[in-house]
Parts: sequence; structure tokens; C-alpha cells
Amino acid sequence: MAANAAPQPPVRFDTHPDHYKHWNLTVDGAVARLNLEVDLHGGLRPGYELKLNSYDLGVDIELADAVRRLRFEHPAVRVVVVSSSLPRVFCAGANIRMLASSAHGFKVNFCKFTNETRCEFEDMSAHSNTHFIAAVNGACAGGGYELALACDEIYLIDDGSSTVSLPEVPLLGVLPGTGGLTRVVDKRKVRRDHADLFCTKAEGFRLRDALRMNLVDGGFPRSKWDERIGAKVDTALHARGGAGSEQGIALTPVSRTVTVEGAVTTVDYPSVSLRIDGDQRLAEITVKGPTEAPPADAAALHALGCESWALRAFRELDDALLELRFNHPTEGLVLLRTEGDPALVTAWDDALSGWREGGDWLAREIQLHQGRTLRRLDNMARSMFALIEPGSCFAGVLYEVALSADRSYMLDDPDQDNFVQLHAVNFGAFPTHNKRTRLDIRFLGAPETVTQLRSQLEPVDAAEAQDLGLVTLSPDDLDWEDEVRIEIEERVSLSPDGLTGMEQNLRFAGAETCETKIFGRLTAWQNWIFQRPNAVGERGALVMYGHPEKPVFDWKRT
Amino acid sequence: MAANAAPQPPVRFDTHPDHYKHWNLTVDGAVARLNLEVDLHGGLRPGYELKLNSYDLGVDIELADAVRRLRFEHPAVRVVVVSSSLPRVFCAGANIRMLASSAHGFKVNFCKFTNETRCEFEDMSAHSNTHFIAAVNGACAGGGYELALACDEIYLIDDGSSTVSLPEVPLLGVLPGTGGLTRVVDKRKVRRDHADLFCTKAEGFRLRDALRMNLVDGGFPRSKWDERIGAKVDTALHARGGAGSEQGIALTPVSRTVTVEGAVTTVDYPSVSLRIDGDQRLAEITVKGPTEAPPADAAALHALGCESWALRAFRELDDALLELRFNHPTEGLVLLRTEGDPALVTAWDDALSGWREGGDWLAREIQLHQGRTLRRLDNMARSMFALIEPGSCFAGVLYEVALSADRSYMLDDPDQDNFVQLHAVNFGAFPTHNKRTRLDIRFLGAPETVTQLRSQLEPVDAAEAQDLGLVTLSPDDLDWEDEVRIEIEERVSLSPDGLTGMEQNLRFAGAETCETKIFGRLTAWQNWIFQRPNAVGERGALVMYGHPEKPVFDWKRT
Repeated sequence: MAANAAPQPPVRFDTHPDHYKHWNLTVDGAVARLNLEVDLHGGLRPGYELKLNSYDLGVDIELADAVRRLRFEHPAVRVVVVSSSLPRVFCAGANIRMLASSAHGFKVNFCKFTNETRCEFEDMSAHSNTHFIAAVNGACAGGGYELALACDEIYLIDDGSSTVSLPEVPLLGVLPGTGGLTRVVDKRKVRRDHADLFCTKAEGFRLRDALRMNLVDGGFPRSKWDERIGAKVDTALHARGGAGSEQGIALTPVSRTVTVEGAVTTVDYPSVSLRIDGDQRLAEITVKGPTEAPPADAAALHALGCESWALRAFRELDDALLELRFNHPTEGLVLLRTEGDPALVTAWDDALSGWREGGDWLAREIQLHQGRTLRRLDNMARSMFALIEPGSCFAGVLYEVALSADRSYMLDDPDQDNFVQLHAVNFGAFPTHNKRTRLDIRFLGAPETVTQLRSQLEPVDAAEAQDLGLVTLSPDDLDWEDEVRIEIEERVSLSPDGLTGMEQNLRFAGAETCETKIFGRLTAWQNWIFQRPNAVGERGALVMYGHPEKPVFDWKRT
Repeated sequence: MAANAAPQPPVRFDTHPDHYKHWNLTVDGAVARLNLEVDLHGGLRPGYELKLNSYDLGVDIELADAVRRLRFEHPAVRVVVVSSSLPRVFCAGANIRMLASSAHGFKVNFCKFTNETRCEFEDMSAHSNTHFIAAVNGACAGGGYELALACDEIYLIDDGSSTVSLPEVPLLGVLPGTGGLTRVVDKRKVRRDHADLFCTKAEGFRLRDALRMNLVDGGFPRSKWDERIGAKVDTALHARGGAGSEQGIALTPVSRTVTVEGAVTTVDYPSVSLRIDGDQRLAEITVKGPTEAPPADAAALHALGCESWALRAFRELDDALLELRFNHPTEGLVLLRTEGDPALVTAWDDALSGWREGGDWLAREIQLHQGRTLRRLDNMARSMFALIEPGSCFAGVLYEVALSADRSYMLDDPDQDNFVQLHAVNFGAFPTHNKRTRLDIRFLGAPETVTQLRSQLEPVDAAEAQDLGLVTLSPDDLDWEDEVRIEIEERVSLSPDGLTGMEQNLRFAGAETCETKIFGRLTAWQNWIFQRPNAVGERGALVMYGHPEKPVFDWKRT
């Protein structure tokens, strides 16, 4: 059923609070409230009702938009309270009918996107001085509790019935795959046997047990709920240094033009272009560098709003990556290119870093957004080759694009200028999911190289880049075309599953974090389970949920 | 085809160098040589030829036996040279026909077992002062290179043709799942893009490139091979402190009696019993504590040979775990019990720890073997409940069994003595795969508890054990029977895949190591791929290997 579902209309990620169907975002000074009230009939696709504040991708697209707008449009916010407008229900998690009727690839991409949004809560808490409080004012199950887990604090209403739960394993035969298993033991450090009790108990735990096991941070009866949550907000606000006075900028929609010619689809943005060649199963992303120097000062940056190159280009890149993930699943190789003046890229890096250091919130948020977009790139289940050719600008933040790629090819042509260039931002501004820089991971076996590179901030040509280990291969102009073409043809001929599994294992060497565990270990097990007849077969648990008959399992343990 | 393969004869793990078909183990003073010469027709099961030193489980059972015997029978060995007796071929890795014709569960268990054996190389290098040199004297592909990766050093013959390679992704559409992907980037710290080149290049790299990318540590031409490998052996021997004079003990076969009555199979060993109830899908393992005090001194321990309780019980437990994995796949829950006198268990812990501290190699090896068996237990893809009842001896090393379980139930009956007891060994002697103690992982959120527990080495009753966090639940005698029965019934009713995925995510919180990455991340992706039609479908890469037609892929990237 699911695997051969009819083609779906493309997914779009642009939205605005004025158009939200499911979330209500209100901002009052330093405190924002995100209240969930899912439109039962507002599903992104037909075929399911979003009962009990259960969600689909459409609900999560709004949440991602809200968080993004909090960062840029409401920078004075210090505390975000996530709650529900439904009586007695906080959130029932991902909608089961939606999951059961979705193709494998959609399920996986849905989980990845929702995971990224939850990671953004934590990114915002760590780097944007914003505190998240989950005010769990009713039943909180599965993805609902996973949403709460992404917050700094979780409070559960003490009404004798509301519980937190992760019922995926007992009810659905799948995992709490939006970070639930990971955050329970790794973030909240719940004891392993308690976590086992919790994750197998479909009905979950009410306040007393939840508190004892550290699944929540506290709870209050309904009569005192608003007052006590208010007190928690005050405490958090105080801890975050009190109300801010930052003035936000407006995020206008990303501008995109789609052209389809035969098997080739082109999505053009002002600073990014995405070209999809369905016949070759190849995607090409080109990021255009800035055409002008950064503004003279932070005030001028603010005046540019979301039209500054540094923000616009990465919002567009972010959109292009999501477009590729959700709407073009068969293009297994992405060629990453840049075009422009490297000096202007590093001038922007200089300017943003300086302003950020001086305390400017917008410069900080732009760099954080660049960092998140680069992590979205790291997380693509596609092979990625960076092609570094004359006219490119793989410098500073854009050199991270090459570092994110599985390989980089740099043309070594004595007759044409072609450089890559490091900048101070490459040594800390854009951590990967394991909280280290891409250079640190690249040179895990030779950390002294990273130290040496700190003094190598001039443009370097292909031969030198090769010597320094900054690129994978540097064919000369005689070999370039054939070599790159052959490698592309070979890559797109390999097993797409084998490549995804391989890349997921090679990309994140070294230390692990909650995030790498979520995208590596948890996701892999969930992907496995999402393929298994015990979950998705005709009589699998995910399919049989809500039916009177029990699921039928093949009992072999693997 | 594979999934519904006919039932196979049970796998047995006892063997002896005199019966090896595939390996030749020679010991000359401090140097052992393990030479691979796989018997083409000696496969464990019919249907495939073990060409080019490719291996199946039978080959690896011999390797595991050889390593075990090196530890106990040849403790004076300081250097092990792993090589091949075939001309021009070191090892071609796991046999493809064998993999393609095996059921999913067998593939997964095969990989797990081979991984554990490779981890044992590293355990031996780290803790038993034994150095492994892979003398790669011919073509070395896939699992062959993964075997080399488990060694301390890798040397490749420089003959103009021999390569090291991981061709799984390009040729078979599966992963190098015996630690290859992990050890390349995490152990040898090969640069990510170099690893990408390597793992997608079916033919691999000859010496020059392999050396440049740190895939090997050196290489020599055939004319100088023996001499130069000999020099490396001398260097390693010197670094390991020169030849030892330890006298080994003989490892006689584990004694086991199998009884089948209807759906119930019982495997009885002197100190362990394994009861498998096919109707209830339940396995019960009981470890019997020592019946006598430890011998008076280390010399007496040596005189006992492999019949000392501490070694025998854990060899039997090890065998029982493998029996369960390979021959009884549908029993999803294991009840773990102990029987005996806790004071005798801790007396053995005391004695072994003391002798080990005093430099006795056998005491050290026994504790290392206990530790590895406990890690094998951690790695079971089964739910595990420890049942702590009067007459049990969950003390010291046997309390680790309870810590390894997903949950522990302890009967709280004022009329009967029932204790658990910590010992110094619980604070360091038995590290898990992530190199931490089970107590450290259990109390990740409260490390001060571990510090406090160090002074709590007296027997504690159920109420106190519950308070201290040493057990999950402690029902009283009125509730015990019903509660335990209901929890068992509930556990065995849940999705076996959901549980395996859940347990794999909950069991290893905190830091990751090569080993946890192999068993968590790498294994999960491999399991996923082993389910995918792109690998195992009628036209999948694993099935089509060696056929003239190309595999047919669904190109969707996930």
C-alpha cells in the first residue's frame, strides 16, 4: 500500500503566522507563547484526521516557521512557552494514519525534518538566550512528549489523569524516532531501566512517577496552573537576563522560480540555483556569493533586513535542500558549486563576526542560521561532490559547503585563477551536529593540521589545497572533464541504500552527541523498523493500529 | 528466497585447533601465527564454495576459538601475526553466496559474532599485552580488510597488484558491516573524503595510495616480506616487554546436555542452565554461583585450569548466549536468574582481583573473559529481565548480570533473605562497550550516587536496593507472582523489531566508542540495508552478484 502510493503534490515550506492552521504564536514582550490547536481537517494530504492535536508535516512546517520568526522577528523574546489550546490534550504525537499511509521515504524525511526543528529549540536555547518551557496541560504522547523533551523544562498538569508517554513501541511497533529514546537517556539521563518501563508502558506515567524518573521537572494542579507556569516563566526570564529590547526584522517569503523542461527542473532563487536532472539522477546546487561588500555597520545590516546576502542566500539554500529532500527523491548525487568573489564572502564573514562579537543579535542569528543550514546539508541522504572551478568562491562560510561534501574536486589549471580560502569562521562559527568544526572532524587524525591552518587564511590554489588536505582531488585541465564525469556516472550507478548507510557512517567521526545519535543510531533503527513487515506489513502494528484485530508479528528477534 | 530458507541444523561453537578446517595456529614462544587457508568445500552449510579465503560463520568460529586459546593456553604470546597461506590472496571477506542465501536474522547474527571476535583482538591488545600484526600478503577485500583493521598494525605486500579494499557498497549494495566503516574513520582516523573514495572503489588501493590515506601502516615487496614482517614482530615484541614465561591452561570443551520435551528445550551445563520455552517465547538463564570457596592461592587456581567456577560458569554462559542467538531466534525475552551463595561469589571476586593485581595472568584473563561475556549479554537482541529471588546470588560479578538486564525485579519478602551485593569489581573490572562501568551508565544523571555506592558493599535487601536505585522494582510477596507474570506476558507480546530498536537506543547512553558505533549505528544501517530490495530483492545487488546482469535499484534516496 504505502510503498506504491500515488505521487503527491510537492511540499512547500513557506508559511506565515497569519496563515497558520495549527499553531497560535503570540508574543508579549520577552515572552512568546506557542499554542497548539491542530485543525482536525487541515492535514497536508487527504486521508487522515488530525485528532487530539496529532500532527503531520504541515503542523511541523508551521512550527519550524514560528521558531525561525521568533529568532528574526522577535529577538527580544527570552522565554517560549509551548502549550496546547485544546482541553485536556497537549499533543498526541505524529498522526498514525498519516504515518501508516505514507511511503517509506516520506516517513524518514518527515522524521528528519521534525528532528531538525526540535534540535533548533536546543540550538536557540544554547546560543540565542531563549528558554523553552513545555507547559504540558493535558495528555502528552509520543511525538508530543518528544516535543516537550526538546524544551529546557517540562511541567505536567497534575489532574489525576494526564500522562506523558512514549507509546510507539507497545502500540505501534515502531520507535519514538523524533529523538525520544535518545533524549530520555542522554539528555534527561533517565535511568535505563526506568526508560525501559516508560517506553513500553503505552499509557505512560502521571506526574508522580514521571517526576520520580526525571521525565518531567514538576507539575501543578489545574487550579494553580497558570500562576505556577507564570512563576516558572518569571524565573526563566530572570535567569536569561530579563527582557531584551532588540527590534526584529521581517522575514519575507523566499523568492523562487520553478522551470520544468523535460526531465530537467530548475528552481531559481536570487542567490541559489537548484537544477535537477531526472534522467541523470543528478542535482546541482550553485550558491552565488555576494555581489556587494557588506554594509558599513550593524545598523545598515538591520536596514537590509532579510535581504542581506548572508541571510538570503542561506534561507534559499535551506529551501533548496528541503525541496530536494521532499520533492525529488531519486536524485542521488548533488554537485555543489559556488559562483562569485571569494573576497566578498570573507568580507561578509569578517563583518558578521565582528558585529556578532560586538553583541549584535542579527549578525549572531545570521551566522546561526548559516550553521543550521550547513547541518541540514550534512544531513542530506544524498552523495555530495563539491566542484571547485574558476569563478567559484569557496571561501569562509562557503568553504564549509565543500567541507560538508563527501568529496571535493578542485580544477588545477595554471591558466585560470582558482582558489579556496579559509577564514576564522571555519574554526568555530559553524559546528556540526557533534559540536565540532568540520575541519576538526576532517583532520581527526592530525589535529595539529587544524592548528597550522589557522595561520593559512590567504587564498590557496589547487596544488596547495591538495597538499594542505583542503580538497580531495585536484585534476588538471586535461583530466578534469573526463575524471569528474566518470566519477559522477559511477556514483549515480551505486546502490542508493548502500550509499546512504555508508555516508551516515563516514560523515560523523569522533565524539557523538544527542544530535548525532538521533540522526545516526536512532534514525537507522527507525528506518529499519519502517521497512519491517512487523510494522508496515499488511498485518503490521502501524497498519493495524485502531483496528479491532491485533497485529501479527514474525517473532524472530534480529 | 532467503527469508523462508529451510530450518538449518543448530550451530555449535566448540572446536579445537586439531579440528580446524580453515585456520592454522602455530605458536613459537612469544609469537603466534594465525594463517588462513579456507577449505573451499568446508562451509558450515551447503550451497556455497569458500573461494579466495572468503569466510562463513564456521571460519569465524575457528578464529574466535583460536583467540580464546591464545589467551588461556598460550599466555606467553605477545605478538600474533595474522596472515594467509594462499598465494596472492589474504582474504576476500565474507562469502557472498553464503550471505545472499542466508535469512536476514542469520546475516545479522553472523555480523554480530564476527564483530565481537574482532573486538576481542582489540581487547586483547589493550588488556592482555598482545600485539596483532596483519601481514596482508595478498588481495585483501571487505571482511578481509576489516579483519586487518582490528589489528594494531597492517602491512600490505608491495607486489604491484595486491590491494586493500572495501567493495561492499559498489559491488554488493551493502555496508562493510564488520566494523569497516567505523574503524576507517574512527580508529585509523582516515580523512572522511579519503574514506569515501576508498569505500566506493571496488578494486581498492595498492600500497602507495593505501599508505598515503593511512589505510595501512606500511608495505614491503615479496622478496623482503618475511624479513621485514619479522622485523616488525621483533619491534612489537620489544615494545610489549619481550617474551613471557607464563604457562597456559588447557581449555577442554564446555560440557552441555540438551533435553527436548515438547516445546521446551533445556540446555544444562554444570554452572548454567538455559531453558527455552517455545510456546511462551521465553528463555530462562540461571547462573549457579560457586559451591566452594576460591582456592588458597594463584597456584591452586592454575591447578584448577578451566574448571574453576569463575571461568567455567562464564564459558558456559557465553555458550548459552550464542546458543540462544543462533538456534532459538523467536524467544524474545530472557529471564536472568542466579542461584547460590553471594558470599562465595564475592569471595571469588576478591581472590581474582587480588591475584590479578599481583600480576597473575590467569586471574586477569578470567576477569577479562567475564567482562566479554557480559558484553555479549549487553549485545543480545532480546529483552532481559533479571529476577532476584531468595536463594539468588546477584553479588559482585553476578550483579553485573542484573545491571545488563533491561529491568530487574527483586522480591521484597520480610520472611525470606534476599540480597544484592556490590563489590569493588562493579566499579571498574567489567567495562561495557563504551568503556564505562554499568553503574556509571545506570547513574549517568547522578554520578555522585556511584561514589556513594563505593562504600555500600554490604548485602542490601529489596527495600534498600530499591532506594539505592540498584533494582528497578521490588514487589512484595503478595504481588510478586502476578506482577512478574503480567510483565512477562506483556513483554513477549510486543513487536520484536520495536523492542530490539528500543533496547539498542536505551542501553548505551553517554559517550560512544568504536564498539558502540559498530553495534549501534553501523549495525542498524546494515540491518536496514539487509532488508531492502536494493540488496536482497530478486534483482538486488547482493543476489545478483556474480551474475552477468546488473542489479536493479529503486533509486529513491532515503
